Amino acid sequence: VAFSSGNHAQAVALAARELGIGATIVMPDDAPQSKLDATRGYGARVVIYSRSTGAGPSREELARRIVDETGAILVPPFDDPAVIAGQGTLAMELLEEIPELDLLVTPCGGGGLLSGCCLAATAMCPGIRLWGVEPEAGDDMRQSFALGEPVSIPVPKTIADSLQTTRPGNRTLAIIRALAQGIVTVSDEELVTAVRFAAERLKVVVEPGGAAALAAVLSGKLPLAAGERVGVVLSGGNVDLKRLGEWLSNRGG
Amino acid sequence: VAFSSGNHAQAVALAARELGIGATIVMPDDAPQSKLDATRGYGARVVIYSRSTGAGPSREELARRIVDETGAILVPPFDDPAVIAGQGTLAMELLEEIPELDLLVTPCGGGGLLSGCCLAATAMCPGIRLWGVEPEAGDDMRQSFALGEPVSIPVPKTIADSLQTTRPGNRTLAIIRALAQGIVTVSDEELVTAVRFAAERLKVVVEPGGAAALAAVLSGKLPLAAGERVGVVLSGGNVDLKRLGEWLSNRGG
Repeated sequence: VAFSSGNHAQAVALAARELGIGATIVMPDDAPQSKLDATRGYGARVVIYSRSTGAGPSREELARRIVDETGAILVPPFDDPAVIAGQGTLAMELLEEIPELDLLVTPCGGGGLLSGCCLAATAMCPGIRLWGVEPEAGDDMRQSFALGEPVSIPVPKTIADSLQTTRPGNRTLAIIRALAQGIVTVSDEELVTAVRFAAERLKVVVEPGGAAALAAVLSGKLPLAAGERVGVVLSGGNVDLKRLGEWLSNRGG
Repeated sequence: VAFSSGNHAQAVALAARELGIGATIVMPDDAPQSKLDATRGYGARVVIYSRSTGAGPSREELARRIVDETGAILVPPFDDPAVIAGQGTLAMELLEEIPELDLLVTPCGGGGLLSGCCLAATAMCPGIRLWGVEPEAGDDMRQSFALGEPVSIPVPKTIADSLQTTRPGNRTLAIIRALAQGIVTVSDEELVTAVRFAAERLKVVVEPGGAAALAAVLSGKLPLAAGERVGVVLSGGNVDLKRLGEWLSNRGG
């Protein structure tokens, strides 16, 4: 069993199918239809919780019940050593191809991707500077990074559905504080601009949350010197075509 | 100097800039704005001819005048041995990565890409079956393939602006007749379905003409046996975001 707004959900569902075992995914009621469809398409059972109103049991509670009832193993979306290590393989593969980077920037929700990339990149490329990027409305990691302990916020209103976390993980925060330079935030408008740039110039479909690092670079939010080499992680392309079409059609989002 | 609806235009403009020489591109008045902008963005001078009304000199005449006046070298979009060989490197790279293909399918306008891929693929992978795909409205290659000599058609009305050729090349037709299995056609609606599929499942932005081979596979136009391995060439992603957005938003195109 896992809980996730969609990308981790699909990853767990696909991994379970490849291994020939069942998977149950706890997903929010306001997840994009494309993510719900894709998760079910990989053969997983989907259990819905109410993120939009906050009524009913939380996703953690629902997942715990399923574990108790069925004996399933919980695969948390970010605050887990194996998940962090797995997400860090992204930075490993990137640095195997392009060994000399001055900066590596990733989207940041609960911090699994960023903390994994921090561990891998620091080991392979000492001196590399690491930054995470959150939506302005959901800056729980930025606040927690500054304070030194996890800060909880209400469910943020942002188009970056994959970054709507309300609290960083304990493990991810500790790793990120130790190894990253900091966290910057981007507006929904800057996310849409990045989604459009990715489609127009990179020919790649990215969802708003997956484009957060690109948005930070494009909008000049990161301290960069001329000639520096920047690795930018695009971390998800699961977006409803109808909404994507609207973002692409309407200049300015 | 070159003439092209846009993709060859950008390739020549970029190559000229890399070599530090000037380029003049003759482009149709109804080319997508994104292709005009991109070609100028690579530093080329753009001369417009009237494709939509057919008034004024043809693109071949305009290009010949520029050659006469300036001494520039003409780089035709398809019916040229070096251009055919260059486009064939695509099949070479594909078969270096994936040596065992039963079928290779490419979009077909003037036939440069298809004939180049025919030469490279047949040399590297004897027995591979090659197919070209045209828009229904612009089946000059299909007709010419059947007749055995180049057939001219009026400028076809199709959303596949990169495949609006009116006559195959002499060289490309001869190579394709010798080495390809045949040509199939797809409707504009099937092209839009393929553009949508590429965005939703492959996370790739493809223009309608560039998605012709994918459209033929998705719509079952090709003779395929179960388990056969098919190489599908996506050959362009230069599309106005506004139009792309409309295709993605409106189910059914």
